[in-house]
Amino acid sequence: MITASVTDTQDGDDLPEPDIQREHPVRMHISDTVHNILAHYEGESAEIKMNLARILMHGRVGGSGRLIILPVDQGIEHGPARSFAANPAAYDPHYHFRLAIDAGLSAFAAPAGLLAAGADSFAGQIPTILKLNAANSLTVIKDQAVVATVDDAVRLNCAAVGFTLYPGSDAFIGQAEELRIVGQEARAAGLPLLVWSYPRGGLISEQGETALDIIAYAAHVAVELGAHIVKVKLPSEHIEQDAARLAYADRQWSDPVERIRHVVQAAFAGRRLVIFSGGAAKDAESLYQDARAIRDGGGSGSIIGRNSFQRPRSEALAMLNEVVRIYSGTG
Amino acid sequence: MITASVTDTQDGDDLPEPDIQREHPVRMHISDTVHNILAHYEGESAEIKMNLARILMHGRVGGSGRLIILPVDQGIEHGPARSFAANPAAYDPHYHFRLAIDAGLSAFAAPAGLLAAGADSFAGQIPTILKLNAANSLTVIKDQAVVATVDDAVRLNCAAVGFTLYPGSDAFIGQAEELRIVGQEARAAGLPLLVWSYPRGGLISEQGETALDIIAYAAHVAVELGAHIVKVKLPSEHIEQDAARLAYADRQWSDPVERIRHVVQAAFAGRRLVIFSGGAAKDAESLYQDARAIRDGGGSGSIIGRNSFQRPRSEALAMLNEVVRIYSGTG
Amino acid sequence: MITASVTDTQDGDDLPEPDIQREHPVRMHISDTVHNILAHYEGESAEIKMNLARILMHGRVGGSGRLIILPVDQGIEHGPARSFAANPAAYDPHYHFRLAIDAGLSAFAAPAGLLAAGADSFAGQIPTILKLNAANSLTVIKDQAVVATVDDAVRLNCAAVGFTLYPGSDAFIGQAEELRIVGQEARAAGLPLLVWSYPRGGLISEQGETALDIIAYAAHVAVELGAHIVKVKLPSEHIEQDAARLAYADRQWSDPVERIRHVVQAAFAGRRLVIFSGGAAKDAESLYQDARAIRDGGGSGSIIGRNSFQRPRSEALAMLNEVVRIYSGTG
Amino acid sequence: MITASVTDTQDGDDLPEPDIQREHPVRMHISDTVHNILAHYEGESAEIKMNLARILMHGRVGGSGRLIILPVDQGIEHGPARSFAANPAAYDPHYHFRLAIDAGLSAFAAPAGLLAAGADSFAGQIPTILKLNAANSLTVIKDQAVVATVDDAVRLNCAAVGFTLYPGSDAFIGQAEELRIVGQEARAAGLPLLVWSYPRGGLISEQGETALDIIAYAAHVAVELGAHIVKVKLPSEHIEQDAARLAYADRQWSDPVERIRHVVQAAFAGRRLVIFSGGAAKDAESLYQDARAIRDGGGSGSIIGRNSFQRPRSEALAMLNEVVRIYSGTG
Amino acid sequence: MITASVTDTQDGDDLPEPDIQREHPVRMHISDTVHNILAHYEGESAEIKMNLARILMHGRVGGSGRLIILPVDQGIEHGPARSFAANPAAYDPHYHFRLAIDAGLSAFAAPAGLLAAGADSFAGQIPTILKLNAANSLTVIKDQAVVATVDDAVRLNCAAVGFTLYPGSDAFIGQAEELRIVGQEARAAGLPLLVWSYPRGGLISEQGETALDIIAYAAHVAVELGAHIVKVKLPSEHIEQDAARLAYADRQWSDPVERIRHVVQAAFAGRRLVIFSGGAAKDAESLYQDARAIRDGGGSGSIIGRNSFQRPRSEALAMLNEVVRIYSGTG
Repeated sequence: MITASVTDTQDGDDLPEPDIQREHPVRMHISDTVHNILAHYEGESAEIKMNLARILMHGRVGGSGRLIILPVDQGIEHGPARSFAANPAAYDPHYHFRLAIDAGLSAFAAPAGLLAAGADSFAGQIPTILKLNAANSLTVIKDQAVVATVDDAVRLNCAAVGFTLYPGSDAFIGQAEELRIVGQEARAAGLPLLVWSYPRGGLISEQGETALDIIAYAAHVAVELGAHIVKVKLPSEHIEQDAARLAYADRQWSDPVERIRHVVQAAFAGRRLVIFSGGAAKDAESLYQDARAIRDGGGSGSIIGRNSFQRPRSEALAMLNEVVRIYSGTG
Repeated sequence: MITASVTDTQDGDDLPEPDIQREHPVRMHISDTVHNILAHYEGESAEIKMNLARILMHGRVGGSGRLIILPVDQGIEHGPARSFAANPAAYDPHYHFRLAIDAGLSAFAAPAGLLAAGADSFAGQIPTILKLNAANSLTVIKDQAVVATVDDAVRLNCAAVGFTLYPGSDAFIGQAEELRIVGQEARAAGLPLLVWSYPRGGLISEQGETALDIIAYAAHVAVELGAHIVKVKLPSEHIEQDAARLAYADRQWSDPVERIRHVVQAAFAGRRLVIFSGGAAKDAESLYQDARAIRDGGGSGSIIGRNSFQRPRSEALAMLNEVVRIYSGTG
Repeated sequence: MITASVTDTQDGDDLPEPDIQREHPVRMHISDTVHNILAHYEGESAEIKMNLARILMHGRVGGSGRLIILPVDQGIEHGPARSFAANPAAYDPHYHFRLAIDAGLSAFAAPAGLLAAGADSFAGQIPTILKLNAANSLTVIKDQAVVATVDDAVRLNCAAVGFTLYPGSDAFIGQAEELRIVGQEARAAGLPLLVWSYPRGGLISEQGETALDIIAYAAHVAVELGAHIVKVKLPSEHIEQDAARLAYADRQWSDPVERIRHVVQAAFAGRRLVIFSGGAAKDAESLYQDARAIRDGGGSGSIIGRNSFQRPRSEALAMLNEVVRIYSGTG
Repeated sequence: MITASVTDTQDGDDLPEPDIQREHPVRMHISDTVHNILAHYEGESAEIKMNLARILMHGRVGGSGRLIILPVDQGIEHGPARSFAANPAAYDPHYHFRLAIDAGLSAFAAPAGLLAAGADSFAGQIPTILKLNAANSLTVIKDQAVVATVDDAVRLNCAAVGFTLYPGSDAFIGQAEELRIVGQEARAAGLPLLVWSYPRGGLISEQGETALDIIAYAAHVAVELGAHIVKVKLPSEHIEQDAARLAYADRQWSDPVERIRHVVQAAFAGRRLVIFSGGAAKDAESLYQDARAIRDGGGSGSIIGRNSFQRPRSEALAMLNEVVRIYSGTG
Repeated sequence: MITASVTDTQDGDDLPEPDIQREHPVRMHISDTVHNILAHYEGESAEIKMNLARILMHGRVGGSGRLIILPVDQGIEHGPARSFAANPAAYDPHYHFRLAIDAGLSAFAAPAGLLAAGADSFAGQIPTILKLNAANSLTVIKDQAVVATVDDAVRLNCAAVGFTLYPGSDAFIGQAEELRIVGQEARAAGLPLLVWSYPRGGLISEQGETALDIIAYAAHVAVELGAHIVKVKLPSEHIEQDAARLAYADRQWSDPVERIRHVVQAAFAGRRLVIFSGGAAKDAESLYQDARAIRDGGGSGSIIGRNSFQRPRSEALAMLNEVVRIYSGTG
């Protein structure tokens, strides 16, 4: 905050003009597009909206209403060598902070250990999202452990917290109740909630995990449970539930743009931010096609992990530059 | 509250007459019928009774002692497309708020995500009921997750909280203990408790889920556990429990009015509000017959979800208008 | 409390004599018998003893050291129709309050819903006991859910709280730990603890549930866990545990008076109140025989539910009148 | 504490000499032996040491560093008739208080119900130890329920709390975590912790429950978990674990004195008090032999239950008198 | 802290020079190497860093950035005789304090019981690490019980707390959530967290427990969960997970130095301290080879238990002296 000395300032005209281009906390510029998005978050505190704006106004797509997020939880989810051996520089947490900053992304999401490892060096340079729960590929039980708290997010100056749900799994009821507690703490701390909604288990087949009806359902569950931002996988054409088949029978779903549009519709008809992940490593052109479909279907953006940090840095920056262009409407 | 200045008012005649038609919080008119209903809630705080009155005095059946409630939890319970594809406008949470308001219903019940999505736009226009727990059709385990809290209900300015019990299921003991905690918090916050009592599991057959003895038992369990309003399904003629057969053997139960009357009797002989749901989509005439039976059997009203929002809006409004007429004694 | 104004009372002789017959809170008369019973409750607060006295001094056997209690938890335990269809007036909670009051019983015990339904109408007319946990016959799992709290008992102005234990069952360890918490809260609130000790499960046969050794053991477990009053079933002649057979081999147990005496002995040699239930409906003469055996064996009284409220009111009052005469030593 | 009035005492010589023989709380005499024992309890508060001293300085072996404790939890563990029918006076809790006091024992240990039953009559006459958890022989599950709290121990003016562990059992992890909580509360209240360490379950055979290696291990587990006093069974010559056999192979273990010495060694080389129980009823001479072995092996004393109260009172007093003589070095 | 009186000191020259050689709390010297290590702990409080420095600056390798720790939890993990019979002096907790102090080690780690047993005698002579959870070889269930708290560590003036994780086991999710709570409490108390990360269970073979990929993964999981220091076993050449094989296929892993280097890399590319254990008893030369590989691969040191205290004291001191020389770069 800018404060003027009470004495010694005889000529107010000499005071420097506050620079309204300077970012938060002096004064944060909010674009009209972002302003309209924030208006959908009815009943939420000004602090929640301010933190959503920190992410939506940051980076090269800042102000467009789109998001590009770098997530780095693959080290714990799949193991360090499987995640980072392809590009050994990525064993270092600082590598990811720098990549997200240099690529001009919207935010960087990771577990507490990794975020802490750059907490001083990169403070204030990019919004961070603390992933509160985590799984690993050594453990057979298909659940996530809650390994960090909203207090950790406050300590690490994060702009949001993340939580993974497995709709369909036997662990779902416990996870939903953990999410209730996390959501209550996050609201009290003014932090928005990003929910990774990954259907699996129960009656869901492997193919069904990305089925259109299931992804739409997963997005809906997340917003009903209070998610401010939902992250789902790109939906396929497959319809998984017999009971849902009739509801999808009136038309073809071969166009990915239409499928994205349906998932966004299932998230309160566009009143919530929905972002999509691409999954395992793929060629750059496929990534661009995905991003164009997300953009054209009304999705809010991409979350790109392994496709970013498993490429050499220069190649990753070029790829992310193209994704930025797509969401800026020029790619 | 209207307060007059102690000084400066020399001529009381000039003060505007308080408009007693204006609703709470200025001054809430309570009809004699509602007054008598509230008197049954012995040992409850004035705030609980005030919130019951907010619902009982609202809308086109306000003051009659009857209730018509719009519930919208089918998106999370059955999936968004199965619930809303028949009338795509219903993907938008605002659609439901407007439908309930325009039809002059008593209250609107939904999960926290959906209620929040209209919290600013429709504040004060209709009493809302926060559904605290939820199931979904992706998860095999037959239990409900507690996904919201009484604090959320206070934050969203709700008039009551809702909770689903499964008497008979293995989850019942846990649910009953969750209900104890929720009930304690709700009483502390002055919010009445609406219990959806849905028998299932254990020794109960599928047919038994709507059996007369089981529905009556489910209503009784709910009021013993402190429910202010009970919601059950319409009971069939079937008697499920051998041990109960003798108690029902003295007469025929073919008249739905008599069955409703018995369920109301099981809920402390009419000292608690009992409302009924109709289940899956059906034709309008059946809905009217159900409503007349509920009315004539001493039931307190209807809760109508899919039959409202899966119809086109004009058709839904016409149907709800007729249900209002029935409960007003003119249909 | 009666307080005299310091001024204006010039002639003390004109003050009305406080009526020591008037009950608590002005001043409660305690008979010598009850005084001696209270002295056994060493280490307990004056408030616990005062509430024990509220029950022991109330009603037509008040002051005799005996208790007759009306329990109404059969609606939730067995279902409303099985409990009340035989006497439909009993669907109404007020019926039971009036029956207990008019029969001059010591106390009325029920779940929170039922006690609340008469909380205003009958406040102060009879001591009430809040049953904190409950089972139902729809649920297969053999445990009790804790459905009310000591706070509810305070809110409903109860004189004691009740809790059911199942010694022998797999649920016992959890129940005993719930009882520890309930007991701690009850002591803090000054409320005595009445434990329904119902052995079942584990290695106990159905016949064993009322075996002499098992009933004596159940009473002992309850008092070791802090019960102020124990409620058990009438013991049969059967001895269930092989390991206990030797301890009972020195004499015959065919006399019910001797069996009662042994159960009372097992409850700290008569230092704790032990009351007995009769079970399912039976003819009045059997009830009287049971009461005489309880009285002559040193038991503290009877708890009579279905045998009271499933009879027509006049018949029930006559039967209870006779039980009062028995415990008053004239029947 | 002795405090002299500031005024009115002109002649100090007239003040009575404080009697340093008088026990706590005026001033507690601590023998050199006990002083040295207390010095081993490093890092513990003065209040913990004071309460250890209350027990170590009490009774006829007071000051010798030895302990003789009367435990009465057999009523709940095995049933009242199996425990007390042999000597019916023992059904009365007061019997045990008087026995322990009249025999000049160090302390009396029992569950909360039994200790409360003499809390007023015997206050201050003998240190009491509240047994916090309990099992019973009706329940199949082999665990202990935590049925009392440290707050109860404070309320009952106890000198210590007791807790039973089952090393080896499936319940052990839960028990150890309960013990952590109990230990924290006990330290906050200044109460020492007596752990009954009873190995069972898992891979331990019935013979193994008293094997030398297993008893030594059980004592070690208890002291590592913070026990101030450990109670184990007398060890046999048997070695249970193959992995431990080599460590015991260097010599014969036929002398019970050597076995006691090893168990004491396993409890931090004598830095913790270790007491031994004898188990089921046996003849007096065997009890004396056990006591001499405990004394000569460096054990801290005996805990004698059924062998005390199942004998007629005069016989029990004679037997306990002899045990006192043994620990006093004259038997 | 040294504070000079504001008045009365007319001649500053007379004040004694603060002795900067004196250790904490007057002023702790921090070597450049340690200073650089502490800088990696971004986002941590000054108190956490001070306690890390207490360990890193202590003993004969103090200031080198290396650690040698004596852990004594084998008594509870494997049994007292298996641990201490080879060197009976080691039954006494004081033996281990003296060994660690006389050998000039960095820290001494043990359960609460053992640390308490020397808490007064050795206060301030060596940093201690409280091991919060523990297993034992009597119990079949493969989990650790949390047997001590961060409050205990504060009470015992510890410099850090230790916690064992079993990545891969069914108990992992529960352990990770316990670790979250412990970590939060430890940070609040300013205590660093040393995690023993021992993969086992799930799909991991016995050989896999020390496989290179699994050890690297275990180290990574620990640092993602907030460990300040990680303790793992020395990795073998084996690769356990098929999914990880490709990531290791580009080169040979026969050199232990390279394997150490990879594990350190997996722990945030050297931003976290990683120490290694050698396992069961082995000859001294093997221990030295291990230490040289740890040193040359960038590991932070050794944790040596049974190999220290199962040797005669003079032999152990000679061995530890050589390990000190190795880490000092002269062995």
